[in-house]
Amino acid sequence: MPQERGFHVAVVGATGAVGQQMIKTLESRDFPISKISLLSSARSAGKKAVFNGQEVTIEEAKPESFEGVDIALFSAGGSISKVLAPEAVKRGAIVVDNTSAFRMDQDIPLVVPEVNADDLKNHNGIIANPNCSTIQMVVALEPLRQKFGLKKVIVSTYQAVSGAGAAAVSEMEEQTRAILEGKEAEAKILPVGSLDKHYQIAFNAIPQIDKFEENGFTFEEMKMINETKKIMHHPELEVAATCVRLPVGTGHSESVYFELDTDGVSAADIKTLLAEAPGVVLQDDPSQQIYPMPAYCVGKNDVFVGRIRKDLDNEKGFHMWVVSDNLLKGAAWNSVQIAETLIELGLVK
Amino acid sequence: MPQERGFHVAVVGATGAVGQQMIKTLESRDFPISKISLLSSARSAGKKAVFNGQEVTIEEAKPESFEGVDIALFSAGGSISKVLAPEAVKRGAIVVDNTSAFRMDQDIPLVVPEVNADDLKNHNGIIANPNCSTIQMVVALEPLRQKFGLKKVIVSTYQAVSGAGAAAVSEMEEQTRAILEGKEAEAKILPVGSLDKHYQIAFNAIPQIDKFEENGFTFEEMKMINETKKIMHHPELEVAATCVRLPVGTGHSESVYFELDTDGVSAADIKTLLAEAPGVVLQDDPSQQIYPMPAYCVGKNDVFVGRIRKDLDNEKGFHMWVVSDNLLKGAAWNSVQIAETLIELGLVK
Repeated sequence: MPQERGFHVAVVGATGAVGQQMIKTLESRDFPISKISLLSSARSAGKKAVFNGQEVTIEEAKPESFEGVDIALFSAGGSISKVLAPEAVKRGAIVVDNTSAFRMDQDIPLVVPEVNADDLKNHNGIIANPNCSTIQMVVALEPLRQKFGLKKVIVSTYQAVSGAGAAAVSEMEEQTRAILEGKEAEAKILPVGSLDKHYQIAFNAIPQIDKFEENGFTFEEMKMINETKKIMHHPELEVAATCVRLPVGTGHSESVYFELDTDGVSAADIKTLLAEAPGVVLQDDPSQQIYPMPAYCVGKNDVFVGRIRKDLDNEKGFHMWVVSDNLLKGAAWNSVQIAETLIELGLVK
Repeated sequence: MPQERGFHVAVVGATGAVGQQMIKTLESRDFPISKISLLSSARSAGKKAVFNGQEVTIEEAKPESFEGVDIALFSAGGSISKVLAPEAVKRGAIVVDNTSAFRMDQDIPLVVPEVNADDLKNHNGIIANPNCSTIQMVVALEPLRQKFGLKKVIVSTYQAVSGAGAAAVSEMEEQTRAILEGKEAEAKILPVGSLDKHYQIAFNAIPQIDKFEENGFTFEEMKMINETKKIMHHPELEVAATCVRLPVGTGHSESVYFELDTDGVSAADIKTLLAEAPGVVLQDDPSQQIYPMPAYCVGKNDVFVGRIRKDLDNEKGFHMWVVSDNLLKGAAWNSVQIAETLIELGLVK
């Protein structure tokens, strides 16, 4: 999106799995940049990166780092965002935050541009980027909600390891090599690095992403439940989630059951609607074995939808399969897309 | 289960992934055997196997192979069963068939011993062993149906590659090695060997198991739907399934949402019931990160259940996570268990 004016953009968490995708996405989108600041923890500061062919030194993220910054993309963990995002705002930057730090704050818009770009108009300096697994689901559900009304959603996820960071992907690869050589797999990171128990992810499925809440759901599951209602402005929507980690590097998949408010809708009606929906690519032809899969979505910004079929018992019930690159639409691309939309709406001073 | 009398047992498909587990299970259960016949296709005939320390030559399965056989365990594909199971019955054998050939025939019991052992009494020579993904689900659901009534089930599966045979597991391992070495993954078997398109399963998830029906569901999904109703004698049960293949060698997992007929049931009530249920091992303590996982269920006969929690919107709705070794309870063990139950009920002449 070339523009007359260039912006000073900061990427916080520039060495992380998502941060690196943010940098690539800013490049590939030809984002109007006058200056880029790549920020990280003290540990990674001093490393070099390349942006648009120019070498850039990564600097430690401090309050002063945001002097003169127009747009700051944060993806360095919630505790960093809590401390530094207000400092960036104080210095005049708009923050797009890809952590859970502010997502459920009433004053902070939680935005998926295809769904609720208008919420950006009410920002107070910080815009939250939703959880990866939430984003791809609401992109697929919002056109259905708008046209037919949406009553209930039950989702089971098939989530990739890169959602837990680059170190988790390396661990999965090491475990996989070990098992193929008949050795023991060592587990130190998944499901949650800071908890006591770690389980092998190679050739396994772990039904825990993030910590558990008192109600038996995980934080990841509650994020999907609460964020979906907020993004869609639909607090009475019934949502339930089961979130599972798979031995897949990148690409989240979701088995979604949903009930509409409207009678008489066919699977063909839903396919027609989603074929034209923003951000969605319909891949749905069982006769040709066409449906989305994570291994084939990597590096693409879209949300892929297939296996759309009507429930056999509930006239208003349907099933579908939703896949997207969790590092792109689930994180980096959605953040950059928010930044682009802020510029288009004239909201970056 | 030592018995006074020994039986002549035949295993048809003795060289396959399930057949090999059947042989191991007969050994480990100390099944009362006077003679064992290991049968296969002409291609594998002549190979040697060891049963209870004795070398046994594998023979080509023919109608005459069943002369004198008391119990025949079939797992060599539906077309073999259709031809040879009636021949075995004609010669006085009871057949336990682990293919889909007869499962939905009205005259043929479809049996999971924990659920409907009584149906064995009405057999006409052939007993069908249900689909692997159905078995583990009904073992977990039947105690709930009996005590609270069951209205609706929505399941998303996470199925292991060994369900598609030993060659598919080898292919997954070869693909995995290739990808880790930066090479292309070659796909020739999954999702369905006989169809045109084959997709990589390594580091991927494939939302197709078996062929598609006209209604958009796969045969595997329709098996789960129809078999569940038949086994539970509950034709009005609402069931929907989405079946997905994962890069897991052995161990099927299932994310199961269900609605009871009864109000006022708590997650604790369900845990108490399942802790005592036949064939079920409860692994459910989020505070200790205890829940079932496929990598840790391999080689065990039980159905492992965890992540039991109440739906946040529906008073009668619950979620759970069900894991079992698809080659054992899903196939070989359930078949041998049917044979043991036939003997206990005095149904083997």
